[in-house]
Amino acid sequence: MQTYTTAPELTPSYLDTVWTTLPARIRPTLLLPAQKLSERLGCSVTIASETFQFTGSFKFRAAYNLLSSIPHSDIVAASSGNFGQAIAYASKILGKRCTIVMPATSAQVKIDAVRSYGGNVDLIDVHKISRQEGAASHLRTHPDAFLAQAYDDYRVVAGNSTLGQEIFAHSTFDTVIVPVGGGGLSSGIVLARDHVHADTEIIGVEPLLGNDAARSLRSGQLVKNEQEPATIADGARTVSLGQINWEILSKGLSTIIEVPDPLIVQALRTCFIENNLKVEPTGALSLAALLAHPERFKGRRVCCIVSGGNVDPAVYAAAITQE
Amino acid sequence: MQTYTTAPELTPSYLDTVWTTLPARIRPTLLLPAQKLSERLGCSVTIASETFQFTGSFKFRAAYNLLSSIPHSDIVAASSGNFGQAIAYASKILGKRCTIVMPATSAQVKIDAVRSYGGNVDLIDVHKISRQEGAASHLRTHPDAFLAQAYDDYRVVAGNSTLGQEIFAHSTFDTVIVPVGGGGLSSGIVLARDHVHADTEIIGVEPLLGNDAARSLRSGQLVKNEQEPATIADGARTVSLGQINWEILSKGLSTIIEVPDPLIVQALRTCFIENNLKVEPTGALSLAALLAHPERFKGRRVCCIVSGGNVDPAVYAAAITQE
Repeated sequence: MQTYTTAPELTPSYLDTVWTTLPARIRPTLLLPAQKLSERLGCSVTIASETFQFTGSFKFRAAYNLLSSIPHSDIVAASSGNFGQAIAYASKILGKRCTIVMPATSAQVKIDAVRSYGGNVDLIDVHKISRQEGAASHLRTHPDAFLAQAYDDYRVVAGNSTLGQEIFAHSTFDTVIVPVGGGGLSSGIVLARDHVHADTEIIGVEPLLGNDAARSLRSGQLVKNEQEPATIADGARTVSLGQINWEILSKGLSTIIEVPDPLIVQALRTCFIENNLKVEPTGALSLAALLAHPERFKGRRVCCIVSGGNVDPAVYAAAITQE
Repeated sequence: MQTYTTAPELTPSYLDTVWTTLPARIRPTLLLPAQKLSERLGCSVTIASETFQFTGSFKFRAAYNLLSSIPHSDIVAASSGNFGQAIAYASKILGKRCTIVMPATSAQVKIDAVRSYGGNVDLIDVHKISRQEGAASHLRTHPDAFLAQAYDDYRVVAGNSTLGQEIFAHSTFDTVIVPVGGGGLSSGIVLARDHVHADTEIIGVEPLLGNDAARSLRSGQLVKNEQEPATIADGARTVSLGQINWEILSKGLSTIIEVPDPLIVQALRTCFIENNLKVEPTGALSLAALLAHPERFKGRRVCCIVSGGNVDPAVYAAAITQE
């Protein structure tokens, strides 16, 4: 396995420990053949859906692994929503208190959900201050709190790698397609692939409106969006990849496919109609990549990771009824 | 186990055969703890969701078991949709031809789906002729065809009983709540309960607008609706229980809960918001029964069967955005 200068802690023996202990605390992913899509596109598509994970997204894997590794009883996190829910629920289970700094534009269901898990919510205007500044300001008044990073932390990456553990144990895939926001999930999947010595290619997918990771990969250096992009895929409204994630992805990702928002909506609708699967826009990214470049995947065994399912009813209703 | 005069074929050894062979041909049900609902109602709710079954509902269990038992190559069936899809797909797998007689009022996605599986669709006006008459008319012109019954056939009941096999193998429940249309699924669950000698109570649930089974149970004799009821739960728009189903249910069901349509919509919305689970209105019936009588289930371990997930996008969008 590669070693990483930004995260020397990511050793095979650390991963073995996480892979041995974390699965008992989480729900297994739902592996679902996408039959009609496979027939139509001429490839074999399996969906790995994290929509039934605790708190409705893969983020719980990271949150539980992180919070169970630290002694702090006060937690603060900056999150567009799913990481916030996951931190709130993991805090509740582990007997910790938490405050989640969220953009005021977050989906209402995500705000409500954080509160329903007992988390405090601190809403900020991301056009005035960044989420990181919001969290830093909280830390100044709560110096004993632990700042949980949504992606740029080796424990987060290792937690997310357990999804890869399940995927690579399930069957042999030629390609795994994974949504990229801050890079926490995608770097976990690369790590898992390398840990089991599979030669599966891993392809990232980003909204075209927030394609900082694709631009980073093309230019060979980490670039940022000027501000949080206004894509419907709210889980990918990140300004840039984390440092650890960038190092792992720059070495291990084959490419990043950029998809326009209307294709994300079409993929969400396809999941609804053909698979009875409720996915959030960010969760639909990997299927949107298939729809964007079907010729690239002809004849291949593809696993599409659906990262989560939490979406406002009004947004979802509009997406499934739009032609 | 009970023996049934309307279906003497339902012996323990026949069930053993089906339980040994059918599971390899179907997808296992998704067993999903409904955490928030459990906390709110003070009981332990597990959802058994057939929304990811082949063709999106439990009906595939029945259809495959039935069609793999008969030599005919031409199949005709009368169905409001899900049984039609299941028969169409089972026919395709088993190399048979099929015609599905459907009410012209069926959900468009269900009509499209039958066609997508290669089935012929024969739309009828149920205010003029019944589905049974439609199917009989087809049989007169195709005398070699086999008329597949959606519920009143021992092979259908036995196929559906494999869902009970999974539920009772999973854990001990005090109560299983199951939707009742023609009684094919609910009688299969009763059969499974008796086959494994569990003492779980089984409760049926019907739309109040089509409460023929509840009235039958109260009066002690099989009564019918005057016409197909106009409930949103289109899978329960049956005129009456089948004979076999009635005998099994009258002996083995604890009671039937009748739920008004607005509560069905509320249960569908609860599945969307709290469980990321896309269910069709008929599939939401068992959760609607919980919402209707929470006090009855306090402190109990309840399994709610979600029978299927196929629903028109417009109907679904309206349901999740309604307050």
